[in-house]
Amino acid sequence: METQVCIIGGGPSGLMLSQLLHLKGIDTIVLEKHSREYVLGRIRAGVLEHGFADLMREAQCGDRMDAEGEIHEGFFISNNGAMTRVDLHKFSGGNSVMVYGQTELTRDLYEARDRMNGKVIHNVEDVKLHDIKADTPPFVTYRDGDEIIRIDCDYIIGADGFHGPSRKSIPADVLREYEKVYPFGWLGVLSRTKPVNDELIYARHDRGFALCSLRSQVLSRYYIQVPLTDSVEDWSDEDFWVELKRRLPAEVAERMQTGPSIEKSIAPLRSFVAEPMRYGNLFLAGDAAHIVPPTGARGLNSAASDIYYLYHALADYYLKGDDEGIENYSKKALARVWKAQRFSWWMTNMLHTYPDSLDYDKRLQEIELEYLFSSDAAQSSLAENYTGLPF
Amino acid sequence: METQVCIIGGGPSGLMLSQLLHLKGIDTIVLEKHSREYVLGRIRAGVLEHGFADLMREAQCGDRMDAEGEIHEGFFISNNGAMTRVDLHKFSGGNSVMVYGQTELTRDLYEARDRMNGKVIHNVEDVKLHDIKADTPPFVTYRDGDEIIRIDCDYIIGADGFHGPSRKSIPADVLREYEKVYPFGWLGVLSRTKPVNDELIYARHDRGFALCSLRSQVLSRYYIQVPLTDSVEDWSDEDFWVELKRRLPAEVAERMQTGPSIEKSIAPLRSFVAEPMRYGNLFLAGDAAHIVPPTGARGLNSAASDIYYLYHALADYYLKGDDEGIENYSKKALARVWKAQRFSWWMTNMLHTYPDSLDYDKRLQEIELEYLFSSDAAQSSLAENYTGLPF
Repeated sequence: METQVCIIGGGPSGLMLSQLLHLKGIDTIVLEKHSREYVLGRIRAGVLEHGFADLMREAQCGDRMDAEGEIHEGFFISNNGAMTRVDLHKFSGGNSVMVYGQTELTRDLYEARDRMNGKVIHNVEDVKLHDIKADTPPFVTYRDGDEIIRIDCDYIIGADGFHGPSRKSIPADVLREYEKVYPFGWLGVLSRTKPVNDELIYARHDRGFALCSLRSQVLSRYYIQVPLTDSVEDWSDEDFWVELKRRLPAEVAERMQTGPSIEKSIAPLRSFVAEPMRYGNLFLAGDAAHIVPPTGARGLNSAASDIYYLYHALADYYLKGDDEGIENYSKKALARVWKAQRFSWWMTNMLHTYPDSLDYDKRLQEIELEYLFSSDAAQSSLAENYTGLPF
Repeated sequence: METQVCIIGGGPSGLMLSQLLHLKGIDTIVLEKHSREYVLGRIRAGVLEHGFADLMREAQCGDRMDAEGEIHEGFFISNNGAMTRVDLHKFSGGNSVMVYGQTELTRDLYEARDRMNGKVIHNVEDVKLHDIKADTPPFVTYRDGDEIIRIDCDYIIGADGFHGPSRKSIPADVLREYEKVYPFGWLGVLSRTKPVNDELIYARHDRGFALCSLRSQVLSRYYIQVPLTDSVEDWSDEDFWVELKRRLPAEVAERMQTGPSIEKSIAPLRSFVAEPMRYGNLFLAGDAAHIVPPTGARGLNSAASDIYYLYHALADYYLKGDDEGIENYSKKALARVWKAQRFSWWMTNMLHTYPDSLDYDKRLQEIELEYLFSSDAAQSSLAENYTGLPF
């Protein structure tokens, strides 16, 4: 097979790039290790930067998002039970975020790809990248049963997540990896209950962080910080609700609707960046190159930011013969990725309890919040990061 | 002896409060452990918030400061040799800082106290605080040779520094202390050379932090970060200049005038806050209650902030019979003190190298600076903290 751009990974990043390039007349093939059902079964983030929502519209995939998604112009931070609102709209100069589950967004992208006969190949095994830095064009192979299939292309996009083969195809002496592991995880519960609050609540509490989030008006997503030694089996639904309520303001806990969990999992928190994001004719995007802790909702948004740069770089190359975007992709993408890393670290650090932390540092967390809410400049900084820094 | 307010400590805080209260007709006695020569021999900070400069003028001590001090509307941050200016004036909405050495400022305050026959008693020994929380008014005693002198008063101000007797007079079960010790110190050199730059340069460098500061156009003050295991004897003047230049941009190093050190010392970096700042009829101010690392120039300014609150509280009490300021002193002073602690921690953390820090965290320091200079909001936050948050 032949294509112009071979995209490894059929998650939202890969699908969105495929869709955007298609609309510019650029041919792609998307290779996905799992089945479509598996991809759509993953429960992930749901807070989209305003620029991400624009990109969905540009990909002609924004209709259902605009109809069913919720525009949030603020969120709340609770500090040991006292709750204050962050006015994102005011402090970002009129921006907001779109709350729309990753599952829904991925479904919309699949449907768009189907409508346009996009080539998305599922259940591919043994994906291998070849000649990514050679005088000849690169190619990708995968196994389909006993057969090895070869795809010749101009460029390969590695949108295959942290564990995918793309990043691992870059020689170790070229790749530089930065990593920070946090001493806690998030226990998340999805439940078919009305969300306790119209807007998100990020809660700092002496017992640990909690987050009240939502996917829709009938689907709530709640999280509590837990030690890394905990496992899902340690937490009955009832225990979860009791502990969640303890970490929230009393009036919020009182009005909370609880119910059986329809998904329950523990995710460790990690920060990770691989540099460079381009090697020869391979371009990394999203989790393949960087991971953030979920505090601050930068994960999916950082992937979308890579897709934005790649889309424009490849469109400029194929339509105008201009390779400036391709040449600068790694530098531009990393500059924004690292700012999202910084913001995610800041939010994480301010809101979580750390084992054995100094009383001084605990107090400093409270002061960070007191300063934040006393300062227009500090709230503007938070708002511009949360709604999305300029591309 | 009798007075209305007995001030323990004849540094800038104690002298300034004495002078300000005197101008309102309130009687004070200042007790200082050391000689005037000793106090004036201490080499300390020299960057005053705009509100501090206003307080000096209100104390009728601003003439020489206004004539000889320098108004700085910005400073520079160097990141591994690349230098960017922070425009304090623009980003604080028109504020600035005054560069005027603490020694000069203290001299002006002494002269003002002399002119008005202020009672400043030097070389007092064995200062003790009595009945600070009793039904009877408090009193202070000290030893003068073999004689014990007693001063009866309404209120006691503990402006006697970290090691003074005031904070130690508060019962341990009332006092809460917060402390953070940094794994490095600052080696400082004072030299009679023309400062290398009109404005301060804070330098982040892989070899460690450096600061180019000044006291006047003929008196430079430079610092480099050193391990806590170093002592002054380990550093010849020549070694100091060589290491300082290495951490600065090449064009700065080239134009640097070097010369013999007229003072050289190593100061460990520490953050410290004691709560509450009032106990009965004792009020703590400045280093007696809180210490910051010098990065960000908050030490003397935080002391001045306490004096601002005490001055207004005591004036309201004596002139209007209004004790609201006295009742709220600890809370109001601590709120601002902690914000200065936060800012000092942030500046320190961003600019110093830490032993055994993760590559991720080192990269995050660089990103903090990249984000800072890309964001008006972040620069406004820095500027409002550096020029002084509102009282």
